Formats: sequence, structure tokens, C-alpha cells
Amino acid sequence: MSTAMPNAGNSPQRDGSAIATKPNRGGLEGVVAATTALSKLDGTAGRLVYRGYNIHDLARSTTFEEIAYLLWYGHLPNRRELNELEAKFAAERSIPDAVLQVLRILPPETQPLDALRTAVSAWGAITVRGKPTIEQATALAARFPVFLAAFNRLRHGQQPLESKPELGHAANYLYLLTGQVPSEEHVRALNSYLVLLADHGMNASTFTARIVASTESDIASAVVAAIGALKGPLHGGAPADVQKMLNEIGTPENAESWLRNAILQGKKLPGFGHRVYKTTDPRAEELRDMSRVADPEGFAFARRVEELAISLLEELKPGRRLYTNVEYYSSALMNSVGLSGDFFTPTFAVSRVAGWTAHILEQANNNRLIRPEAEYTGPVDVRFVPLDQR
Amino acid sequence: MSTAMPNAGNSPQRDGSAIATKPNRGGLEGVVAATTALSKLDGTAGRLVYRGYNIHDLARSTTFEEIAYLLWYGHLPNRRELNELEAKFAAERSIPDAVLQVLRILPPETQPLDALRTAVSAWGAITVRGKPTIEQATALAARFPVFLAAFNRLRHGQQPLESKPELGHAANYLYLLTGQVPSEEHVRALNSYLVLLADHGMNASTFTARIVASTESDIASAVVAAIGALKGPLHGGAPADVQKMLNEIGTPENAESWLRNAILQGKKLPGFGHRVYKTTDPRAEELRDMSRVADPEGFAFARRVEELAISLLEELKPGRRLYTNVEYYSSALMNSVGLSGDFFTPTFAVSRVAGWTAHILEQANNNRLIRPEAEYTGPVDVRFVPLDQR
Repeated sequence: MSTAMPNAGNSPQRDGSAIATKPNRGGLEGVVAATTALSKLDGTAGRLVYRGYNIHDLARSTTFEEIAYLLWYGHLPNRRELNELEAKFAAERSIPDAVLQVLRILPPETQPLDALRTAVSAWGAITVRGKPTIEQATALAARFPVFLAAFNRLRHGQQPLESKPELGHAANYLYLLTGQVPSEEHVRALNSYLVLLADHGMNASTFTARIVASTESDIASAVVAAIGALKGPLHGGAPADVQKMLNEIGTPENAESWLRNAILQGKKLPGFGHRVYKTTDPRAEELRDMSRVADPEGFAFARRVEELAISLLEELKPGRRLYTNVEYYSSALMNSVGLSGDFFTPTFAVSRVAGWTAHILEQANNNRLIRPEAEYTGPVDVRFVPLDQR
Repeated sequence: MSTAMPNAGNSPQRDGSAIATKPNRGGLEGVVAATTALSKLDGTAGRLVYRGYNIHDLARSTTFEEIAYLLWYGHLPNRRELNELEAKFAAERSIPDAVLQVLRILPPETQPLDALRTAVSAWGAITVRGKPTIEQATALAARFPVFLAAFNRLRHGQQPLESKPELGHAANYLYLLTGQVPSEEHVRALNSYLVLLADHGMNASTFTARIVASTESDIASAVVAAIGALKGPLHGGAPADVQKMLNEIGTPENAESWLRNAILQGKKLPGFGHRVYKTTDPRAEELRDMSRVADPEGFAFARRVEELAISLLEELKPGRRLYTNVEYYSSALMNSVGLSGDFFTPTFAVSRVAGWTAHILEQANNNRLIRPEAEYTGPVDVRFVPLDQR
């Protein structure tokens, strides 16, 4: 019956990013859980495509809205199709009064992803009926920045702002956060980030969303579940940790000894390693190039640390093949456009909701309940003793 | 790489309960996704155990609190241990003001599971920090009936009630819903239901909860995700449909022709079939016995329809092995204790939260990120064309 090995028990390490060189380390590694026509990652070649388009072609030549269209409708939009989707996004960028009230109730110290999860759950409770549709996907993707920015302003004692219909998705998000129409440069950088993170095969949050959809539950339930999965640092990461490491290292001269010590002490290096990629993550390459332009000085130091870390990991952990992941340069990028550290993972969600909803639609359109089995490792045939004899 | 076959694409049928006799029908059927010491179901023998105890021994000899203790701590409690857990449940049966405000905002037509999902999300946002603990599990399980009953009273224009510390979990739930201390008979019936449904291997909602926990996300995120999965009718069911079918059949004389027609038309019979059980679900056997006592007349008719349906399914769908599932008699039981139809699946959640939280703790204590792969079926090497040339 069982074709894959169990998860727990075999692998005590907590490092979700380590690469398996032997089979059967659990966590469904190498097990095909679904088919998808949305994206494909080739971990050995360091290649990522959305519906056949290489991520390197899309990263700086498309908008997030084009990518959402591509994922939902199956082809890149022409100008008319894109205008229509942009108009729908603009029309959906509102916050129902009930959801705003829910956000007002949450205390300022609430984690932004918890606020987003709760707001989307409330929005779904009020709004979503019936089977998943592209209209619902559009409504959700349009509102992620609105909910997050509203919470951000409320927690700082400010009133939420109205969206500007003439702004694109990335620009409007920055506007709602700051009240300032952002620079072209910031919009371009954030847009590229949103394009790069929009889908990524059968990652943990996407898989979560598909399982929920496979029960024939609604799109909001599936997206709420995915937000919860993204919140975990083994998936959504802890992008602030990259900056913390760079700050601790401090100077280029200090880098080698710091890194060598950390690796020898078995510490996980933030921004390195991925379950699937066995070479540099192609998204990290794009983010590195953008970071080179946006912040030349910071880039030079980060690049030096990256090169040293990869060569030390090869020396000290041969065969592990740990390379830079998407987290390494995205932290610098998000910082450069003015996002606070606790908005890095929520902004990941602003992008990934396009992929989640596309996967939910794909699952719902050709569904079979996802229901695996477990290997039972507990006791057998235990004799029952009533309470008064225990 | 791939050891299991893909999900979608192969199996267009939407019937999540059908039994596979051939391999590779997708949905991770037959794939071991995790190890667990919590429960084991043997689908061929029709056997279910919690930590080695046969469900037939537990169904009418234990309370829900004893089962929660068994799942969380690994052994059945003695009197002192049970008293301590009961005291903790009683102490946690409160509703924070912020969560009550969130429930007040939701309109009365909100689906109860959507209200529960939103309340638990808000409660988690306000309360939950750090790694999953038994204390958090206790706090969550204690509050499910409180949140649900509060919403039920609010939607009917009534004020939520205070819990009664001297009542057990099942009794207090009925009290909070109705304002009446329930009869011993109703408490016994509901308690048995809560015992029977508390855990069930790697079902879709439990699997969802474990994936979220495997990212090192928090217990509330994982439970919120599980609620969303239970909402889907292929998992949480549509218990009202069993009663609807029995009403449509109307009389014993009408049963054979009605059932024969339905089966020949390819209709799914509510309350029959399960992905794993290839014989009668042992929980259905317990519920059938309880139903026999609680409502002899209704039982006789339901039993007649059950026997006819099984023999007709054998005749008309040979090899499918479709038997009564837990839904068939649980609808009658929940009706008999006074629960409204849209509280059947939420009451399933009141029970299953014990299993969800036990699985989350088990996953967190020996974790590896659950991250499967997907088979890509989309286009390859598509040439990128800029927007102005599309």
C-alpha cells in the first residue's frame, strides 16, 4: 500500500530547507501529490516557469496583474484583457464595513498575518458562496493589500486610506501603507517581487489550499488555511533574520570567520537552502540583480557574504548543495521600498494569493479528495479499564 | 522521483467516498503521509482504535474529556488526572470580549463553520504565541462549544450564556445552546458522538492541520485551516442530506424502487461509502445502536433503508463495497438531542478539535516540513511576447 515513507520519526532535524540526497526522509519529499499546469520548478537546473514562461522573461517585463491573469486564465493578456482585469482589481479594492470593524477590534500588537487571516475569514463568511470562481479569486487578490494596509494604519493610530483606481496593484499597496504615491523605482521593485513569488509548484501553503479545496470547501476557507501555512518560518521564512545575520557579521573582513563558526556549530544560515532547489533559486538571481541597482553598497556586502557562505558550505557540508534562496535578497528589496520587517511575509502573501487561488480553481475543476494514509506507530490491543479501576 | 501518481486528471469523478480497487487513482490514496501514534483505522476489518483502545470499548464508557486526555497525554486519565483536565476545561470556557465583538459583527445568515473559523482566527491572533502546547490545545477544545453557542444565540437575537462549571463538555454545550440543563439521555448521546468522532487517522482536515504545523506555524493557524477543510462536504459531509433522502423515500414500501432508481442514475447515496472503510464504519455501528434506543420508530425505517441500499449496491455496483458511513446515523442522533441541521458539521468540529490538536502536537514534537511535488502538465518553453505585441 504505502509508496512513500512516513514523515515523523525518521528525521529529527527541524531544518525544512535541507536537501535530501537519500530517499525516504518523509515530509512527502519526492511524492507527486497533484498535477498542475500552473508552474514548474526544476530544482536541479534552477529553473522556474509559469505556464511555460521562464521566470527570467517575466520578472521585469510584466506586472503582477498580468501574472495573475496568466495563472487564472491560462495565457498572458492582451492590452484589452489586461485593462479589464485592472478595472476589476480597482473595483474590488474596497473593505466592507464589517471587515474593517473586525480589524479595529484586533489589538495593535497582533501579528499582521494573523490580522490578514482573520480579515479574510470574516470577508469570506460575509461574502463567499458556492464553488470557487475567477471572480472570487480576483476579489481576494485585490483585497489582500487593502486589508493589510488598513491594519497597518490602524495599529499606528491612523485611519485607513481609500485606494487610488489609477494606480496599479504594487503602487496602490505602497500608497495605502504610506499615504504617498510611491516612486517609479519602488513600484518597479515591488512589482517584480510580486511577479517572482506568485506561484511555486506544490509548496506547503499551496498544497494546504488544494487539500481544503479538494473537500469542496469554499475559496476563502482554502486561502485562510494557506495564510496559516505561510505563517510558519519553515515556509514563509523569517526574512528579518537575513538582515540580522548581515548586521551581526558587520564587515567583509569578519565574514569568513563568522560564517565558518556558524556552520561548524550546525547553525542554519538564513537565506540559504531550499527543499527543491539544488542550485541557486532563479528568483534569488533576479532579486540579486535588482538589489545590485537599488542599493550598490549593501549589495556588495551581501554578495560577498553569499559567495563566502556558498564556498564554505561546499567545503564543510559537502553534498548538501545549499545555495541562496529567495529570502536572501528579498529582505533587502522589501526594506528598500519602505516595508517594515513584519510586513515581509504578509507581502509574500500579497503575491502568492494569485497562485493559491489559481491552484484552488485548478483543483476544484477536476477534483478528487486528497486523503492520504498514516502509518500507525502506537500501541495495539490495549485492554480497556473503566475510570474507577484506573 | 515520483512514487505516487498524480491527483487530478486521472479521475474525473467527484465522489470522494468511492473505494479504489485499482491503484493510482490520485488524491494520495494509499500514500503514507505521516506516522502517528494517535489512531488507526483498518478499513477492511472495519476497526478503529485510539492509542490502542478499540472504539467499541470507548464509545459508551468514556467521556469526551477522557478521550481528549488520552489523545493529548497518551494514556487514559485516572480520577485525579481527569478532575484536573475537567477543571482546566471549565476555567477555559470563556469568550474574550474581542472575540465576542467579532461574532456580533457577523450577520445572522453567516454559516456557523465560517463564524467558528473567524472566531478561532481572532482568538488565535489575540492569544496564541509560541510553539503548540497542550495548554493551548485545551484552551481551544474548551472554547469551540462556547464560540458556536454564542454565535447561535446572537443570530437568534439572544444573549450568549455563561458556562456552568459543574457541567461536563457535552452537557455544557447543550446548555449554552438552549439555556436548559439537558437530560441525562441527551448528554449521553452527544457525549458518545463526541467520543466517536474525536480522531480518525490522516483525514483531510487533520492532514491540513499537520501541514500547517509542519511549517512551524502556530496551533490556531493549523486549527483554523482544519475547520476550512471540514467545511467541505466531501469531508465534513452534508448530514442533512441523509434526512432529506429518508424523507423523500417516505415509506418502507417505496424504498427499493427509490434506491434502485437513484443507484442506476449514478446518484451518490448520502451516508454510504468512505475512502478507507470497505465495510461498515465501526462508528456507524455504535451510532446505529444508540439510535435504536433513542428513536425506535425512526430507527426501524432507517435500518430498513440501510439494509436495502447495501444489498442493492452489491447487486448494481459489484466490487465497489459501499457501506454505511458515520454520517448515516449521526444525523438522527444530532437531531434527537436538539441540534439544528446547520450545527451538525460544527458539532463534528467540537469533537475533532481534540484529534486536530493532538496531531498538531505530534507533528510539532518531531517535525519535518510536509512539502510534496507536483507533476507539471502545462506547456513548456513558451516564447515570451511583450504586452504591446500581444
